[in-house]
Amino acid sequence: MRNLATRAQWCRTARVALLSLLAWGLAPRSPAAAPPAVAPPAVAPAPSMADLLAASPPGDWRRPDPARTLYLDLPQGRVVFELAPRFAPRHVENLRALARERWFDGLAIVRVQDNFVVQWGDPGPGVTRPVQSAALNLQPEFARAWERDLPFVRLPDRDGYAPDAGFVDGFAVAGERRAGRIWLAHCYGTLAVGRDLAVDSGNAGELYVVIGHAPRQLDRNATVLGRVLDGIERLSSLPRGTGPLGFYATPAERVPIRALRFADELPEGERTPLEVLRTDSRTFAQVVEARRNRRDGWYVQPAGHIDLCSVPLPVRHLAR
Amino acid sequence: MRNLATRAQWCRTARVALLSLLAWGLAPRSPAAAPPAVAPPAVAPAPSMADLLAASPPGDWRRPDPARTLYLDLPQGRVVFELAPRFAPRHVENLRALARERWFDGLAIVRVQDNFVVQWGDPGPGVTRPVQSAALNLQPEFARAWERDLPFVRLPDRDGYAPDAGFVDGFAVAGERRAGRIWLAHCYGTLAVGRDLAVDSGNAGELYVVIGHAPRQLDRNATVLGRVLDGIERLSSLPRGTGPLGFYATPAERVPIRALRFADELPEGERTPLEVLRTDSRTFAQVVEARRNRRDGWYVQPAGHIDLCSVPLPVRHLAR
Repeated sequence: MRNLATRAQWCRTARVALLSLLAWGLAPRSPAAAPPAVAPPAVAPAPSMADLLAASPPGDWRRPDPARTLYLDLPQGRVVFELAPRFAPRHVENLRALARERWFDGLAIVRVQDNFVVQWGDPGPGVTRPVQSAALNLQPEFARAWERDLPFVRLPDRDGYAPDAGFVDGFAVAGERRAGRIWLAHCYGTLAVGRDLAVDSGNAGELYVVIGHAPRQLDRNATVLGRVLDGIERLSSLPRGTGPLGFYATPAERVPIRALRFADELPEGERTPLEVLRTDSRTFAQVVEARRNRRDGWYVQPAGHIDLCSVPLPVRHLAR
Repeated sequence: MRNLATRAQWCRTARVALLSLLAWGLAPRSPAAAPPAVAPPAVAPAPSMADLLAASPPGDWRRPDPARTLYLDLPQGRVVFELAPRFAPRHVENLRALARERWFDGLAIVRVQDNFVVQWGDPGPGVTRPVQSAALNLQPEFARAWERDLPFVRLPDRDGYAPDAGFVDGFAVAGERRAGRIWLAHCYGTLAVGRDLAVDSGNAGELYVVIGHAPRQLDRNATVLGRVLDGIERLSSLPRGTGPLGFYATPAERVPIRALRFADELPEGERTPLEVLRTDSRTFAQVVEARRNRRDGWYVQPAGHIDLCSVPLPVRHLAR
């Protein structure tokens, strides 16, 4: 009996092995017989991002510093940004000066280019609104030194645009570690500084937000200030401009800016309470893996890869 | 004199070499001294995409076949799609059957999820609109055989999601040439088939269009039908749904579909005359290179890389 069982077992094993070999070696090369590429997940179902966030410890979240949180208040509601003074200290400081001057209030969103950017600031031509304490021009902050103590969390996959990619302070970054340079990447929701041809022609008075596929070609060509934490749909669903480069063709189309303020300029009761998942937390590492290989029931083919700008940077609202 | 000249020349060469070595080897590693990463373009200004398109020969353009051109007519105007029967013959055929039945007319856009998709079809739950000649379920067409005569044009850069990436028939594709599989990639503007958990639960009656950063994790998990040629801003600027997954919370928010037709169902005068740049043309290859390394005056740091979904697939309107 044992022999028979063993032989039967061997036959089964051999048949499975042979079928696997055939399936692996032949089927995909035989167009007529090729099955649809629908492989079941290789491992047991793993928690989804929603599961991971629901189970995350409170310490994996942080409250953004009000001194580097920006509110853009529009008729449509508020858009909340987190700024990155580690990468753009001069521009963040000048933006603060402009906000204190109430320089943006009453200006407008002047450009909405599909699959690219929403932009606001002085509608020009030229400088039509005088500046008081803020600077009119700043040296660019397109990249910064990669210091040894930079809290860099590496993306597990290769980035096409730079040898190193990952996260610092909750922002997507790319860099050349060996050359000692690192910069904020242009992803969906990135906030950056518009400029003219001269690299020092920006002062954070003209700002744009990415509302399309990551325009990584802008990396190191513009000073990135931060990213949207909340309310991006108030920008991304605006009517597209029909003028060149998506500028609104007429002033009537422009979207007025009610106010642009740093959160610490407002009393506590007027702030938008948010928490951001720490990109140096264990939960974040699990989220990245859960998104590299989606194992939610709907997915039959995990990608086994994620690009820098597809990684979610979770934000949640707090009760007041 | 010759000796002196030679020695002077040698010194110049050595000095340049030494300075280059210093510039390459030291400066970027010395954070304090590191200049902003603002290198002038390495070569003389090259034509921009606009220049290349303006100078392109007429033969580099083609008129999409009306039998595989789809019109989605909304109160906002028309969205034009080109379909890819080479990749999804069953779904394109069934979509044609549904369009002939006028199955979509009076249905609605039911979902607009920010940075993800716009979706329309039977609002359900369940099948609320009966089907006549069209099929209710179809075997998925997530990928197809990579036949030898497939007119594949390779992307010059590496794709993170697949070993091979490029263009076929004007569509962005990814694949595994050695394994003999190729599929349409999910990029901004991709049109694909919604389905439930079962892979054969779609029939092209529920369709979605990508309106955000390329969700490449959907590749090989959904049947891709084609892409938007014109009018995507009529979808991407719609108000976002506030229900789960971006579904509109109330029927009143839905955007009614006036009609969904194949172009060849309409008289010539009601068609939208467009031309598409051939992805197997010389101009297209030049466009890809012009976008890999932007040399427009504004750019100071060409990327030296482009990802599959950042490559523009130019379309132009023709005079009627």
